[in-house]
Amino acid sequence: MQSLAIARPPGRPRCDATRKAVLAAAYDLLAEGGLSRFTVEGVAARSGVARSTIYRWWPSKGALAMEGFLEATAADLALPASESVIADLQASLRLFARLVRGKAGRIIRCIIAEGQGDPETIDAFLTGFVIPRRAELRAVVERGIERGELRADLDVEMALYSLFAPLYQRMLLNEGVDDDWVDRLSGFVLAGCLAPKR
Amino acid sequence: MQSLAIARPPGRPRCDATRKAVLAAAYDLLAEGGLSRFTVEGVAARSGVARSTIYRWWPSKGALAMEGFLEATAADLALPASESVIADLQASLRLFARLVRGKAGRIIRCIIAEGQGDPETIDAFLTGFVIPRRAELRAVVERGIERGELRADLDVEMALYSLFAPLYQRMLLNEGVDDDWVDRLSGFVLAGCLAPKR
Repeated sequence: MQSLAIARPPGRPRCDATRKAVLAAAYDLLAEGGLSRFTVEGVAARSGVARSTIYRWWPSKGALAMEGFLEATAADLALPASESVIADLQASLRLFARLVRGKAGRIIRCIIAEGQGDPETIDAFLTGFVIPRRAELRAVVERGIERGELRADLDVEMALYSLFAPLYQRMLLNEGVDDDWVDRLSGFVLAGCLAPKR
Repeated sequence: MQSLAIARPPGRPRCDATRKAVLAAAYDLLAEGGLSRFTVEGVAARSGVARSTIYRWWPSKGALAMEGFLEATAADLALPASESVIADLQASLRLFARLVRGKAGRIIRCIIAEGQGDPETIDAFLTGFVIPRRAELRAVVERGIERGELRADLDVEMALYSLFAPLYQRMLLNEGVDDDWVDRLSGFVLAGCLAPKR
């Protein structure tokens, strides 16, 4: 057994566990106090990982916060890929709504609030989260066009704005995004996206 | 001429001018520093109206700020009423985008940012601005349904979210809302709202 342990790259599993602990602590701290009260010291204290280690792996407080957010939300936003692109988009909207109702929603609200006085925070959120998400969703919509489920002349960008922006607005105005509401929204938008029946 | 002046309700024009000066000062202060740095003292100093007068007419700092915002934006958002409801909705979206690009947009961003930590601010914005605007726009859409321009089974609420929420999202994420973008959005959403051709 000893030889196996030696054959494994030294310290690798430990590094992964440490990385996960740091990112989980970062996410919890973000959800509790937003970006303005987020510090590397706080993450070190909560994760039990030395500050020097954290500074070695993450170039800045902002990079650490963003990676904590992305790591925690990635699995919850994994895009469904069923036989129906319409069903996949409805499911994606529901997943995002569920996220918005929880800890991630509180973090997004903080990022947007604090970002109004700090363009770099908005840039990091756009580059790290919004733009990659849009690209993934665009690929889903384009699959629907290729398959003939969605109209060939669809304005993909505008369809995605119409589907997702109302959730941002309702979240920020404390209006709530329950599943019934979300299904009404996707029903309305997607009806206008369908390919004409042959 | 003296008798005419006496016949006029005493002091009325002066009150209107004072009211307008106070509200204009409130709007300017809001645009410069947001709600967090907005004070009745600041409005008094800028308008040259005594604090006691301001306190007599407005029950709270928040009520003064909201009325300043509504007074300044009302004329810019007056709903067009042409022969075509489609044209009216396109024009309304353009008017809102122009507002968003200017001083009012800065104020809305501040209200939303500061409101994430203060639900009363969001309530005041909803009650004073968002909900009355939605009611006005709903009336426009319903006129379109009555005239047969828009589909009888249209989900009016969702259509309005799809039209306006993307402007909020792009404003808050610093992505800009120029007229070409706005026209693409209204083109996409309104195409799905049209009554089927007979």
